[in-house]
Amino acid sequence: MGIPETVSKGMQQTNALFRSAVIQNRQIDALDKVYTSDARILPPGAPSIQGRAQNKDFWQQAISGMGIVDAELKTVNAEAVGNDVIEIGQATLTIEGGQMVAGKYVVHWKQEDGIWKWHTDIWNLNQ
Amino acid sequence: MGIPETVSKGMQQTNALFRSAVIQNRQIDALDKVYTSDARILPPGAPSIQGRAQNKDFWQQAISGMGIVDAELKTVNAEAVGNDVIEIGQATLTIEGGQMVAGKYVVHWKQEDGIWKWHTDIWNLNQ
Repeated sequence: MGIPETVSKGMQQTNALFRSAVIQNRQIDALDKVYTSDARILPPGAPSIQGRAQNKDFWQQAISGMGIVDAELKTVNAEAVGNDVIEIGQATLTIEGGQMVAGKYVVHWKQEDGIWKWHTDIWNLNQ
Repeated sequence: MGIPETVSKGMQQTNALFRSAVIQNRQIDALDKVYTSDARILPPGAPSIQGRAQNKDFWQQAISGMGIVDAELKTVNAEAVGNDVIEIGQATLTIEGGQMVAGKYVVHWKQEDGIWKWHTDIWNLNQ
C-alpha cells in the first residue's frame, strides 16, 4: 500500500531537516524533530541505543568522529502500516575529503506532535 | 502496543524453523515458510535483494560461506502496527569452530497463507 501525499511530504521535510540541520550544520538539537521521544537507533558497530539524550550523543560522536559532511536519503519503498509507515531507503554519506559511503536503512515512522518522525532507525553499509 | 499471544507464538514458530531447518540443517527451501514471497533482505556488506530465489541464494552462500552453524534470535521489542508486527531483536550467530557473533535486527512481519513471515529483514553487527 502506498502512502498519502501529505505523509510523503512530511517524511521528506523530516529527512531534509536531518540533512541540512543535523548533518550539514551540526545542529544536534534538531534531532528532537527527527526522532520520536523514545526512538531506538540500531547502528552498525555498536549496541542499540534509545531515547533523546543517547541518540544525540550518538550522532554528535558519529558526525564528528567519522567526519560526515552530507547524508543523502532516498526512499526505495514506503508502506503505510496502520497509522505508521515502514520505509526502506538508500543512504549516501559524504565524508570530509569527499569519500562517499553507500548504505541502506529501514525506518519505522510515527507521527508525534503532528510531525512525522523516525521511531526505529537501523542501517548498514553495502561494502 | 504489545502483540496477541497467538501472533507471538506464530513468530516464535517461524524463528524456530529458521534456526533448526535453515541454519542447523541447511534446508534452504524452508525459507519459503520464513519469508513472504516478495520479502526484502538488507544484509550488511551487500546490496538489498528481493524475492524467493534471490533470498535463497543469499542464505545458501552466507551459511556455507561464513560457516554459520547456529543462529539464536531474541525479541527485544515487538509492536503490533496495523495488521503487521515490527520486531526489534538481538541475534547471536555461532560460526564453525565456536566463534560467536552478536548482531541486532529489525523485522517487519506479515501474515501470509496463515503463517507469520519476515517481509523486511535488516541487521548489522555490534562490533
